[in-house]
Amino acid sequence: MKNKMMVIDALVLSHWDKEFLHLLKAGGVTCVHASCGLWENARETISKIGEWQRFFEEHADLIYQVKTGEDMDEALRQGKIGVILGLQNTSALEDELSLVSVFNTLGIKVMQLTYNNQNLIGSSCYEEHDNGLSRYGKLVVEKMNEYGVMIDLSHVGERTTLDTIQYSSRPVAITHANPNWIYPTKRNKSKEVLSALRENKGMLGVCAYPHLIGGKDTSLQEFCYLIKETVDFMGVDHVGLGTDLTYNMPIDFLHWMRMGRWTHEIDYGAGSKENPSWPEWPEWFQSPKDFPNIITGLKEVGMSLEDIEKIMGENWYLFFKESFQRKRE
Amino acid sequence: MKNKMMVIDALVLSHWDKEFLHLLKAGGVTCVHASCGLWENARETISKIGEWQRFFEEHADLIYQVKTGEDMDEALRQGKIGVILGLQNTSALEDELSLVSVFNTLGIKVMQLTYNNQNLIGSSCYEEHDNGLSRYGKLVVEKMNEYGVMIDLSHVGERTTLDTIQYSSRPVAITHANPNWIYPTKRNKSKEVLSALRENKGMLGVCAYPHLIGGKDTSLQEFCYLIKETVDFMGVDHVGLGTDLTYNMPIDFLHWMRMGRWTHEIDYGAGSKENPSWPEWPEWFQSPKDFPNIITGLKEVGMSLEDIEKIMGENWYLFFKESFQRKRE
Repeated sequence: MKNKMMVIDALVLSHWDKEFLHLLKAGGVTCVHASCGLWENARETISKIGEWQRFFEEHADLIYQVKTGEDMDEALRQGKIGVILGLQNTSALEDELSLVSVFNTLGIKVMQLTYNNQNLIGSSCYEEHDNGLSRYGKLVVEKMNEYGVMIDLSHVGERTTLDTIQYSSRPVAITHANPNWIYPTKRNKSKEVLSALRENKGMLGVCAYPHLIGGKDTSLQEFCYLIKETVDFMGVDHVGLGTDLTYNMPIDFLHWMRMGRWTHEIDYGAGSKENPSWPEWPEWFQSPKDFPNIITGLKEVGMSLEDIEKIMGENWYLFFKESFQRKRE
Repeated sequence: MKNKMMVIDALVLSHWDKEFLHLLKAGGVTCVHASCGLWENARETISKIGEWQRFFEEHADLIYQVKTGEDMDEALRQGKIGVILGLQNTSALEDELSLVSVFNTLGIKVMQLTYNNQNLIGSSCYEEHDNGLSRYGKLVVEKMNEYGVMIDLSHVGERTTLDTIQYSSRPVAITHANPNWIYPTKRNKSKEVLSALRENKGMLGVCAYPHLIGGKDTSLQEFCYLIKETVDFMGVDHVGLGTDLTYNMPIDFLHWMRMGRWTHEIDYGAGSKENPSWPEWPEWFQSPKDFPNIITGLKEVGMSLEDIEKIMGENWYLFFKESFQRKRE
């Protein structure tokens, strides 16, 4: 299984079509976590999953749906790109605890507890205050632990994140965020959070979203030093990549992503009034075909091949494999 | 309009049928706020409103739907019971700010910001922590202020309540709760909250729900002293009644009320393990036909007729009239 370097992207939000699949292939991507929901409720999420099922059928020659560790191996064996479906919110669960099991059966193997706003479960990094996990939130965490739905805390607020790390009986992930002492933004994570994640044996996906790394002019070398510093803090077994790539997405989607239906005013999300549109991506990462640039960059900042393999994919591979298993009591 | 004493109940959760309408009539009730949603989402709430529209048509000889102050007057003129529809949650709004206007058009003139759990807007009195109003919550409060949807904070947590009182540009209501220094429970309200409500020129509906007044053995005299003490604290213009009557409701509804879909365990709400079922009501308030008992009781604790008239209905009448108006900027 190890004749080829695994490349896993723990968060992609892009427009999925044949072109994108070929870019993933060209970049050597073996597995990817595809975000298939932001603000959608249960009914809307079911439609999204329906679209994905059609996409899996139409492109069965290139992709393979991953619901288990064994599925990842099967995708590797068949030389197809493994695609894991996940949600960047728990809005799909609405107020119904049983829906954790329903969406797990449908292959939603990753759920971020909150997107950008407070919800029934917890609070987001953009809320002024953060309560921590609600009564319902604790029950949802228990169910996700039980069914093997990986908990993602990327957009989640500080206190809800710390509560969840403590409350969860299994390691959790932050699929796409960076240390905030390197790039200070609301979306990046504090030393306290990342220390707790490290204790928890959780995973951090270093994120290439331009607003989270200081903009498109950040060089490949700077990005690779960001990875290196993150590894120094978290340990080499607990860092991967989660690019948060938004390839070929229309401006309407940006508005949905930021404003959903919850406000009639403009909300800039990770952007700003001066920079309201889609961010431009650095020249060294224009699409998934540029993953080899990161491998080259990591070599150039002096990382060993063994460590590069872990960060590019092996760590996520092992973590997903463990996380997606139903819990044996 | 003052030839008959107005009797207004600011919160009733009962089973609505012809029998119940006759009990309201027998008790001299002129207007009532009927709770028509607890955990329901937008779609489900629309069905509830559909059922209510059918009920209004079938019983047009006895009831009149109240959406404005003028409707209350028209109901009085026609000698019919005015019925205001309201929700004990903002779950019907889901994540969509525009739904405030939609449900207002459908006649939802009262919305409690949270029921027993945290939601997208704020936190409840049963959550361990309370953040206050979320980003979306502030926008919803603005829209409710604009359209004249009365804000109810009865089940809302302390901080969300204080935030809302401060943030709302209009007076708000606690339709059904008591001072917690008289009867300590999570559902009753602190001096800090009631002081803020008093400053805000808001209204408090004294509640007869047995768990909130010390049980079914609380005497009519004790209940009337509760009203008197509440009036001494709030001022005689800012207190009314909100019985929270649950007449003729099945046990399945109690489970829905407490557990919704959010837990698979038993939650006792305002009840307890020792007292898990519907509470028994005091002998002096078995149904709305017993409102005259409260009038008698208030006379017996020495309240003037003028003050009794305010508390029994006039205060809510004036408050509803003002609250339901669309705001002129």
